[in-house]
Amino acid sequence: MTMFQRTSAEFLGTFWLVLGGCGSAVFAAAFPQLGIGLLGVSLAFGLTVLTMAYSIGHISGCHLNPAVTVGLWAGGRFPAKDILPYVLAQLVGAFAAALVIYAIAVGKADYSLAQNGLAANGYGEHSPGRYALASGLVAEAVLTFFFVMVILGSTDRRAPAGFAPLAIGLALTLIHLISIPITNTSVNPARSSGPALVVGGWALQQLWLFWVAPLLGGLAGGLAYRLVAAEGAPAKPAITGEPRPSV
Amino acid sequence: MTMFQRTSAEFLGTFWLVLGGCGSAVFAAAFPQLGIGLLGVSLAFGLTVLTMAYSIGHISGCHLNPAVTVGLWAGGRFPAKDILPYVLAQLVGAFAAALVIYAIAVGKADYSLAQNGLAANGYGEHSPGRYALASGLVAEAVLTFFFVMVILGSTDRRAPAGFAPLAIGLALTLIHLISIPITNTSVNPARSSGPALVVGGWALQQLWLFWVAPLLGGLAGGLAYRLVAAEGAPAKPAITGEPRPSV
Amino acid sequence: MTMFQRTSAEFLGTFWLVLGGCGSAVFAAAFPQLGIGLLGVSLAFGLTVLTMAYSIGHISGCHLNPAVTVGLWAGGRFPAKDILPYVLAQLVGAFAAALVIYAIAVGKADYSLAQNGLAANGYGEHSPGRYALASGLVAEAVLTFFFVMVILGSTDRRAPAGFAPLAIGLALTLIHLISIPITNTSVNPARSSGPALVVGGWALQQLWLFWVAPLLGGLAGGLAYRLVAAEGAPAKPAITGEPRPSV
Amino acid sequence: MTMFQRTSAEFLGTFWLVLGGCGSAVFAAAFPQLGIGLLGVSLAFGLTVLTMAYSIGHISGCHLNPAVTVGLWAGGRFPAKDILPYVLAQLVGAFAAALVIYAIAVGKADYSLAQNGLAANGYGEHSPGRYALASGLVAEAVLTFFFVMVILGSTDRRAPAGFAPLAIGLALTLIHLISIPITNTSVNPARSSGPALVVGGWALQQLWLFWVAPLLGGLAGGLAYRLVAAEGAPAKPAITGEPRPSV
Repeated sequence: MTMFQRTSAEFLGTFWLVLGGCGSAVFAAAFPQLGIGLLGVSLAFGLTVLTMAYSIGHISGCHLNPAVTVGLWAGGRFPAKDILPYVLAQLVGAFAAALVIYAIAVGKADYSLAQNGLAANGYGEHSPGRYALASGLVAEAVLTFFFVMVILGSTDRRAPAGFAPLAIGLALTLIHLISIPITNTSVNPARSSGPALVVGGWALQQLWLFWVAPLLGGLAGGLAYRLVAAEGAPAKPAITGEPRPSV
Repeated sequence: MTMFQRTSAEFLGTFWLVLGGCGSAVFAAAFPQLGIGLLGVSLAFGLTVLTMAYSIGHISGCHLNPAVTVGLWAGGRFPAKDILPYVLAQLVGAFAAALVIYAIAVGKADYSLAQNGLAANGYGEHSPGRYALASGLVAEAVLTFFFVMVILGSTDRRAPAGFAPLAIGLALTLIHLISIPITNTSVNPARSSGPALVVGGWALQQLWLFWVAPLLGGLAGGLAYRLVAAEGAPAKPAITGEPRPSV
Repeated sequence: MTMFQRTSAEFLGTFWLVLGGCGSAVFAAAFPQLGIGLLGVSLAFGLTVLTMAYSIGHISGCHLNPAVTVGLWAGGRFPAKDILPYVLAQLVGAFAAALVIYAIAVGKADYSLAQNGLAANGYGEHSPGRYALASGLVAEAVLTFFFVMVILGSTDRRAPAGFAPLAIGLALTLIHLISIPITNTSVNPARSSGPALVVGGWALQQLWLFWVAPLLGGLAGGLAYRLVAAEGAPAKPAITGEPRPSV
Repeated sequence: MTMFQRTSAEFLGTFWLVLGGCGSAVFAAAFPQLGIGLLGVSLAFGLTVLTMAYSIGHISGCHLNPAVTVGLWAGGRFPAKDILPYVLAQLVGAFAAALVIYAIAVGKADYSLAQNGLAANGYGEHSPGRYALASGLVAEAVLTFFFVMVILGSTDRRAPAGFAPLAIGLALTLIHLISIPITNTSVNPARSSGPALVVGGWALQQLWLFWVAPLLGGLAGGLAYRLVAAEGAPAKPAITGEPRPSV
């Protein structure tokens, strides 16, 4: 695949992740009586990744997340020189999806960006459950660590073939089941940046944490998996459409 | 398979889609205290497609949806001459299922077609969350675009074999998690037409949107996937039981 | 496998189906504030079949249901002479599970068999949503028809290998999402008989419907699939561990 | 794999099980209005096992549970001499996760260990639904019996390849759907010990039941599967990365 095709796939996939995850939160989570709640939003985030990984995994590897891209690099599955275009495509996709969510939401008479927001991430007084900055930092780093471990493990050539998108998507659902009350759950700097750029203000001021913690967790997860899973034999190539040797 | 068998499968499958999706909404969504809510209805719609795609995928391809049939044609996976019989079978199945839902529902003393409806789709004052026409149009078109991309991507010969019904069914669940409050979620002109024909009135007047937006989105999704996934090599045949070359 | 092993597997599997499905309904559905509701019970029923089909499918075929056993016979996948031992094993398993649920439930001070029941099936004044007998009859027959179609379709040799337990289990979840308010959902005479034998009274008086409707639906589903899927070539053997030619 | 790698994987996996299962219960189950409830917690527990089994199954077999380790030994799939290091790694992982949950939870101003706890297991007055000791004993033993049967059955070489993590993870979800009200659901002595060691007091006093019942159930499940599934042919090696002959 060409880099244009691969970054187009990352753009579309990250658009889908933010549209599905943040969109379900904005439109459906608190619908009177019948709302899908945090459980439904958790399922939605996971299903965006599950469905896209089966659909564009063969084109771009379906990272949809700068922390995943960096974690795969740390795990020896992705070349350093492709990180930047991937991350840029992810950011543009997330931003475009946040705009579309906003465009749909304003068609509801009582929607207000200030009140209902776009499911941006936050800590302290902007944490859904009022969790402190340190809680958010620990949760985001630890959860991204395990997310990258699941990605590297389930795409290992020794794991059952074809099931990785299922495991990875449902890992993201699990991560949301644990942590929406803490930070609204990021583990993905692109997913955090899209809504923050539209919401502005506090969301932009707190955005740094949702780059720092996921990237640290992702890096550590990539290194840890290499250590725990090493066997001397070469690992299976990444879920990217263009397998390359370890950098 | 014969065209009679293929259209019989499309009839039964679309019957199942409407019975399961709209039926769960009518019978179980708002059951006192224990109701399944929008999350349960979203799961039900997705599971109709997941279960049927594993069961009749080898007979008809399990489209169950005119926007999918048209999207597969746009993606080069379905012959133009088979579109009409497929769409007719889907419409008859959806209509028959709406009648069966109604027949069951009237066995409950306090059911009223005018009040409880049949989960028909609507916008403006008939949108569950009172979203404007433009919101419904954007949501239906964008969501059908991604639905067709997931169908084409997960049935691509480069994707893991056997997982497409899982990805496609859960994509429909995801789409409902996002958009039931906006339009009651269509992305499927047959699913919209069945209940509208029984409910009549406003449901028929608003039905045009649930043909226009899904068909446009499906067409665009089919063309977009061709562009993003093209590799020069011939694509894997569609999920229909009778693979044919691109038209 | 010996018939003793096969009926032991059917006994254990049907025990698991009733323990998981009816047990979750009795213990967890209406737990204050946090209860799993009809959605959780629907998931539980489906997961009993999904998990057992992967675990004992190679031993007995994992029917767990007289209507499935009869439907597989009608579909040409199961020999008539094995129907009786299978059905007996299923009935004993369902009855034993109902006793265990009762034994656990009485350890809760405010449990009462008359008030809280054992998730027995009913119609009319014993339908959870007060649906009439005719509604229950139609729903049970139609849903069992589709259940058997999904079983025959997803285990067809032309369907993707290995996914049938997933499709069949989730079909049972879907069926419960639709119809718990109508009859508490049977589609399985054994599942209905176990709790009815412990509860007695009205549950026994209404039990006939949950034999008649599922058996009729299952028979029709088996015949319909043969018609729609026929191709001249011999169909793939059933999910039983002892494949036999069509009767 | 080396024993260091295998026990590291068991440590990380059991950490993930407790962080995801107990963490979701502590942080998200009772979130105002939108909380995930017992259904969300059930899903979270199951997804910890599903995701890890696909990710570290090829390293350690992904037991994450002393009752599973002992049940696999009873089923002839795991060597006696490896039981102790596995169980120790599981205990350390569960304890570390309980500490991290506590560290995150205290960042919420109104969290109190005495009031909100760490999702420890209990019976009698510490059962969520006030079920008696005998109910807890029966439920834990019977459910662990079936859990080990599902593990042995779905990893049998005659079962479809690759689906075992799905079946096993969703079996744990099902077990929680049934029994959270009874004991808060253990079926896993490590999962019980981690939170109990941090909570202390009653949780430690009642901990014995969550060793005795799961171990008995697991042993019985391992022996029962051998009986029901025996065919003379050697069984498929365990899900451990280092298959060994039966002990």
